[in-house]
Amino acid sequence: MSFTGCQQIGAEESCAGDQSFQAVNPADGSHLPGEFKCATAEEIDRAADLAASAAAAVRAVSLEQRAAFLDACADEIMALGQDLGDRYMAETGLPQGRFEGERGRTCGQLKMFARYVKDGSWLDAKIDHADPDRKPFAKPDVRSMRQPIGPVVVFGASNFPLAFATSGGDAASAMASGCPIIVKAHPSHPGTAELIGRAILAAAAKTGMPNGVFSQLQDSGIESGKQLAMHPAVKAIGFTGSLRGGRALFDLAASRPDPIPVFAEMGSTNPMFVLPEAMAERAEAIGKGLGGSVLLGVGQFCTCPGIVLGLPGAGWTDLVEATSASVQGGGAATMLNAGIKQNFVAGLDRLTAAGASLASGEAQPDGCAASGAVFITTGSDMLDDPALEEEVFGPSTLFVECTSEEQMLDVARGLSGHLSATIHGTDADLAANSELIDILTEKAGRLVFNDYPTGVEVNHAIVHGGPYPATTDSRTTSVGSASIERFLRPVCWQDFPDSALPDALKDSNPLGLWRVVDGVRTRQR
Amino acid sequence: MSFTGCQQIGAEESCAGDQSFQAVNPADGSHLPGEFKCATAEEIDRAADLAASAAAAVRAVSLEQRAAFLDACADEIMALGQDLGDRYMAETGLPQGRFEGERGRTCGQLKMFARYVKDGSWLDAKIDHADPDRKPFAKPDVRSMRQPIGPVVVFGASNFPLAFATSGGDAASAMASGCPIIVKAHPSHPGTAELIGRAILAAAAKTGMPNGVFSQLQDSGIESGKQLAMHPAVKAIGFTGSLRGGRALFDLAASRPDPIPVFAEMGSTNPMFVLPEAMAERAEAIGKGLGGSVLLGVGQFCTCPGIVLGLPGAGWTDLVEATSASVQGGGAATMLNAGIKQNFVAGLDRLTAAGASLASGEAQPDGCAASGAVFITTGSDMLDDPALEEEVFGPSTLFVECTSEEQMLDVARGLSGHLSATIHGTDADLAANSELIDILTEKAGRLVFNDYPTGVEVNHAIVHGGPYPATTDSRTTSVGSASIERFLRPVCWQDFPDSALPDALKDSNPLGLWRVVDGVRTRQR
Repeated sequence: MSFTGCQQIGAEESCAGDQSFQAVNPADGSHLPGEFKCATAEEIDRAADLAASAAAAVRAVSLEQRAAFLDACADEIMALGQDLGDRYMAETGLPQGRFEGERGRTCGQLKMFARYVKDGSWLDAKIDHADPDRKPFAKPDVRSMRQPIGPVVVFGASNFPLAFATSGGDAASAMASGCPIIVKAHPSHPGTAELIGRAILAAAAKTGMPNGVFSQLQDSGIESGKQLAMHPAVKAIGFTGSLRGGRALFDLAASRPDPIPVFAEMGSTNPMFVLPEAMAERAEAIGKGLGGSVLLGVGQFCTCPGIVLGLPGAGWTDLVEATSASVQGGGAATMLNAGIKQNFVAGLDRLTAAGASLASGEAQPDGCAASGAVFITTGSDMLDDPALEEEVFGPSTLFVECTSEEQMLDVARGLSGHLSATIHGTDADLAANSELIDILTEKAGRLVFNDYPTGVEVNHAIVHGGPYPATTDSRTTSVGSASIERFLRPVCWQDFPDSALPDALKDSNPLGLWRVVDGVRTRQR
Repeated sequence: MSFTGCQQIGAEESCAGDQSFQAVNPADGSHLPGEFKCATAEEIDRAADLAASAAAAVRAVSLEQRAAFLDACADEIMALGQDLGDRYMAETGLPQGRFEGERGRTCGQLKMFARYVKDGSWLDAKIDHADPDRKPFAKPDVRSMRQPIGPVVVFGASNFPLAFATSGGDAASAMASGCPIIVKAHPSHPGTAELIGRAILAAAAKTGMPNGVFSQLQDSGIESGKQLAMHPAVKAIGFTGSLRGGRALFDLAASRPDPIPVFAEMGSTNPMFVLPEAMAERAEAIGKGLGGSVLLGVGQFCTCPGIVLGLPGAGWTDLVEATSASVQGGGAATMLNAGIKQNFVAGLDRLTAAGASLASGEAQPDGCAASGAVFITTGSDMLDDPALEEEVFGPSTLFVECTSEEQMLDVARGLSGHLSATIHGTDADLAANSELIDILTEKAGRLVFNDYPTGVEVNHAIVHGGPYPATTDSRTTSVGSASIERFLRPVCWQDFPDSALPDALKDSNPLGLWRVVDGVRTRQR
């Protein structure tokens, strides 16, 4: 397994840079093979210009061909075999099972988009027929459908080198929408990124996609990302990562002469509420499951349950103890990189400084390894100090003991935006807490009942999003088929002859799409 | 007809301010009856807090009741009778026919949303059923639908005191979505705004809507708008107006600790391309129609055709001459206010300074009256000076004579975003200019064939939007049923019992909605 360390500017490998970096194995701090060049300003311009010049050709590709490309991406990723797994594990400290699971999710996601592209409902084709006899003015013929927004920059996330990076949801949905993409690879796993980039480029070549449909740039720092975000050819940004990084990109994009949308998924604390009957009936079981959820992926999930709320009593004590036991039983594990480990330790210190007590947890091991930590605080402290709501990225959770249901509602009302909110309860609990549920629909993109927030399904109904600071755009999702909508804009054609209309809008409905015709949903040809 | 001049904070009239202003009749500069108080900082807070506290109750209103409210808004506006028309005309200089037409459009729009609300397709309900036997993990039940985003601030536009203001498209779509709204009335027509506000509040009372579903604030300046844009309770902004105003709001909203979406429709120059065969066949007829389109509403339409491109020859000369004759034949007419007239004159001066020649047009009359102006320049000047593309709000248009089809394509490629782009051509012209059409789909929200861009249908397929600087968000429309999507965000429920789900997501489909169930679109109960 060898690496060129070059930028992938469409089909061309470009190695113009004089600065380079190596990947680090977080398990032992060793440097991994491969010298990865940092993209130069000229290479970044070239990648953006190539994407812009390819946009019309990529848009013109048939839905069938676009689907074949996405399917081929999945096939080529599978064809990388264990070489990919070995590099993935070396660059991330994550185990073989996680590699296989994440690869399955990633390829499944690409294949889901292949099917969804062909379905074509997402084109949102609509026809309002003319009425020349309408008074006082003749009514024109108006037909609309969604068009790709243009070149999209995708920022790879550190925590899912496959499912939220070069081949991840942002990339797959943007390519499905018909946009050329430029991936800024995450510097934690440049080798994984290069391998995946090769697979996507091979798929593009095999399925005859226009050159420029995919490019990928490497950089150990943030300059190339900033340059990309400001580039006039770039029309949208997809990002998964920290609040700081996402907000910086959002601010840059908003400062452009022509602002562009930024879909930054920036994680959250994913509050969990354990309601009285459930607490009384099964606190220990809930705590055991919660501990597993906190430890999943060494807590490096944006859906890690970081706040748990409930009322005091025997159940509460059992819940905290069972969670603590489960978390401690997991032992230490390697985090993705040294920076994430440092931030995790700083986050634990922040909780302590804000007055939270350590309910269980040991001194953190050296290096990139981390052990789980369970904190406890009170509802009134939570109401007083917003810092307690901030995400601590890693295997920790904070129990918030409320004095009353009213205080729990107050804490809920004070929450900022989250990706998810979880309720553990009986049906009677649910009925008795409708106000809480109602508040949480304003605070989160996903409400989970009697389960844990880690693990996000890839389907049509899923919402992986939520109000700021969970994301920079609550009107969308970054997982599931609906994520394609982020990279589309509507265009309408008024009074065009049928022959000059896109197939999706022709009277004969040659693509067999679901359309809205004069206000009626129909698939009629 | 008398005016309280108060803020309408829900059902309460509040007159706390010590500053006030009067409306001005642009036809003669006289002050109109009514002392309108400028909202105080405390009143603005109160309106925003009321909207926030009403949000859950407004969201919970049934679709039937919400529709009844929108229908009642239309009925109450009609019930204002000619009192509304008299004030409308006095405040705007617009004639009786325009009042009646705009009122018809406005009430039709409200009633369209009433029907659309009941249809419920816009809830985008989706269900992915559970599969407990799926390996390696059981598949959860996931169901999603759109929820109102929260309190919306609507900025009334100067140029459509009914259709794009207190009762306009932003207001109607936001109320249809289930969001409480706070209208910042345009200071050009405070009396019209107060009357319409009363009508909406009467409709809310008659249909039992929660107090706070509608508020309206008056201010002669921009401070109240700034305060509203920064208010933590406000979750989205709808605006129709100038690029400067829209961009200022966008920048404010992006600078918030929690950025919110701004849907600013900021007008454009709406390029029109006259292709060779059409030019040869009917230049004079096109020019005559074009002149009428330029003069419509004294040019104060965001869809006014401000740039016309074509190739030289006899047809071109005929086109310019016919347009000039049509524009000159219209005579002078009163613009909406003195500021708009001043800006119009400054815009004409800007065109002259940029090297465009006056093809026809007289010295502008005094006061708020304006006469039409036709300018001419070359394709190469257009390519050299982006200032020639900037909107001149008022009755003027700029002919751009290109030396070749290739130069016309270059000008098209260099265009920024526009609300519309118009083609005059034969079917053969269309076939021969597919590249031009393709470029224009990247530049505009609406493509018009053999018609004029003024006049925007209110239907399902319409797109009144486009890339920046036409709007701050090209992924949407501010006219038509789809404009409701601006004020919605998706939420999903995972593993909730049927009894705790919203009606739209219950297994039995009690609302009879079109839904996507396991990927299949169905209306099944």
